[in-house]
Amino acid sequence: MGAAANLTEDLPHRAARLLARIRRERPKVHCLTNYVAMNISANAVLAVGAVPSMTMTPLAMSDFVRSTQSLVVNLGMLEPEREKASRIAVEQAELLGKPWALDPVKIERSGSRLAVARELLAAKPSAMRANRDEIEALADAEQAVDRNELADKLGCVIAETGSSDMISDGEQRCRIVNGHPLMAQVTAMGCAASAIMGAFLAVEEDAFIAICSALMVMSIAGEIAGAKSRGPGSFQSNLLDALFELDERMITKYARLK
Amino acid sequence: MGAAANLTEDLPHRAARLLARIRRERPKVHCLTNYVAMNISANAVLAVGAVPSMTMTPLAMSDFVRSTQSLVVNLGMLEPEREKASRIAVEQAELLGKPWALDPVKIERSGSRLAVARELLAAKPSAMRANRDEIEALADAEQAVDRNELADKLGCVIAETGSSDMISDGEQRCRIVNGHPLMAQVTAMGCAASAIMGAFLAVEEDAFIAICSALMVMSIAGEIAGAKSRGPGSFQSNLLDALFELDERMITKYARLK
Amino acid sequence: MGAAANLTEDLPHRAARLLARIRRERPKVHCLTNYVAMNISANAVLAVGAVPSMTMTPLAMSDFVRSTQSLVVNLGMLEPEREKASRIAVEQAELLGKPWALDPVKIERSGSRLAVARELLAAKPSAMRANRDEIEALADAEQAVDRNELADKLGCVIAETGSSDMISDGEQRCRIVNGHPLMAQVTAMGCAASAIMGAFLAVEEDAFIAICSALMVMSIAGEIAGAKSRGPGSFQSNLLDALFELDERMITKYARLK
Repeated sequence: MGAAANLTEDLPHRAARLLARIRRERPKVHCLTNYVAMNISANAVLAVGAVPSMTMTPLAMSDFVRSTQSLVVNLGMLEPEREKASRIAVEQAELLGKPWALDPVKIERSGSRLAVARELLAAKPSAMRANRDEIEALADAEQAVDRNELADKLGCVIAETGSSDMISDGEQRCRIVNGHPLMAQVTAMGCAASAIMGAFLAVEEDAFIAICSALMVMSIAGEIAGAKSRGPGSFQSNLLDALFELDERMITKYARLK
Repeated sequence: MGAAANLTEDLPHRAARLLARIRRERPKVHCLTNYVAMNISANAVLAVGAVPSMTMTPLAMSDFVRSTQSLVVNLGMLEPEREKASRIAVEQAELLGKPWALDPVKIERSGSRLAVARELLAAKPSAMRANRDEIEALADAEQAVDRNELADKLGCVIAETGSSDMISDGEQRCRIVNGHPLMAQVTAMGCAASAIMGAFLAVEEDAFIAICSALMVMSIAGEIAGAKSRGPGSFQSNLLDALFELDERMITKYARLK
Repeated sequence: MGAAANLTEDLPHRAARLLARIRRERPKVHCLTNYVAMNISANAVLAVGAVPSMTMTPLAMSDFVRSTQSLVVNLGMLEPEREKASRIAVEQAELLGKPWALDPVKIERSGSRLAVARELLAAKPSAMRANRDEIEALADAEQAVDRNELADKLGCVIAETGSSDMISDGEQRCRIVNGHPLMAQVTAMGCAASAIMGAFLAVEEDAFIAICSALMVMSIAGEIAGAKSRGPGSFQSNLLDALFELDERMITKYARLK
């Protein structure tokens, strides 16, 4: 596992350089996401230095995807119009070769939403981020034994986030053990992580590196914010501040990869 | 009024035990609510220890109500699709015997919304929370002279919240005088209180006890947060922290019931 | 430019008196705005002392516009139903002579949205607020050489906000140089400024004075909040606190007009 060892050593520096590049180039990230997550997702994208847009009417999809550098499709609270917009956006992203990420929120609780997720996955996103229950629902449906086989079958990077984050593209794997328990006490933290993945995909072609970097940045910011917070209210505020303040020194100091 | 006196003495302890039970059992609470209130409602539900879901497309209603422990229907910014989803959700909750609460936002400003509220009330929620203007509009429509007669007529617990909170089920009554003026300076505080009612209804069959407990927890958290805040921005953050930190010692210390 | 000099001297005091009047009279402001901006817009309106409503279903538009003192129409994330509601609301405001403001979000990125903005502008809002890219897209479409000619052509106050704010009604001009760089790092700050414009239009017939006052209040609050904040998270919280705390002494101390 020499390659993995090198990757682990190098990754914090690469993540820091990508973050600096986002702040310099200010790429546009178009997010189709749920109503609960919209404000915090837009602010998370801004906090790492990128520029969010969130329009979700099908009519305007082509205009917005054409002028964005990456796309994030989140299925939380999915309704028919946003489902339609998501299909158009993904088709357009595929056509134009723009990177995109999928966040299949709560597919374990709705059969119709699981079907939409599977259909969108057939268009090969750069990456998918989900929690354990969602990954399991999808692995069952795709008859994959685990996250790695799922990544291999789907041909995209799969990130399972939780008390630690596990990223796999079928071959390479990375585990990030940063974070803080308060991240699970605030709504839409996973959605915000997915939005940040969009910012990193906009500046890094290697999706595995982009996703490891994005989730490292999110987890370290969460860890720093959590240590300063009394509860979920101050945590939200401290998280955006931490994302905004994060630099190479802090990333390399805090990163804990396995 | 010996019963009422006993209730008043006992209620803070019962509220604390219910809060502990929510944190232990982590019940699911499905909220159909308005866009302004969604994020803060989800975070309020999480802060007391329950697990929110907010999907509102009619198609997914059965899936989500089937797997939830309680339901909250808020009529703020009501639009036709959410109205449709609300009817399905309420019907499903009735069928499955799941507790649910109604928040008839701004019915005094829209005749059509008042009509929807009355129709949903006919399906007998466990409880309804509203402010004075909304209660008055409804009492007029139902030809009830006051909140108590309204509770009696509608056959559900009625809570009127404001500078103090008054809860009635037609027979029993409780008045909570906790709170802070900043609660009226932040949007969606009433909606968040209704969402928290959903968490308590999920673990306590006696709706009167559940609603008194939920509103006591919200008012005490508001009072603690208000004392620490310079304005509505810091108040929001402090409120979530206070909901998260609240324990039996604080509830019994702060509770002021009449 | 004696008139302008007098205006500049007098404006902070006038803004302070209008703010006091908003807090005393608590006018209703109806906002049709995008999902990302809803919560912060409602809270900004509350923080200056007015009462927001945000319903956007076409069916309820007449009810809500009839009982409001002013209207704000924001085109961010515009979807067909809200477009329809916006037309009804603007028509109703025109009919009843109620002041209204337009915020033509991201019209430079969508041709169809630009067309909607131009159509609504034909109904003569009291004022329009936008950033440089949006003003340029509109000036191009209207064949105006600059902001002043645009104000003159459209017959309404035009405010271009950014690192400084420039307000023009074609004849009078005002430049506000307050503010803080963090205002650009938080989503929906322009939308919140437009919502606050609605509060000032509700109490001041002279739209030029109302808009200069509203943007002065927003920029000064942003400057005060920025000085206290570590990043965009604490900034949001501090901004609402600053709007809430602002008084004549602070406005006259901080105001920097040109």
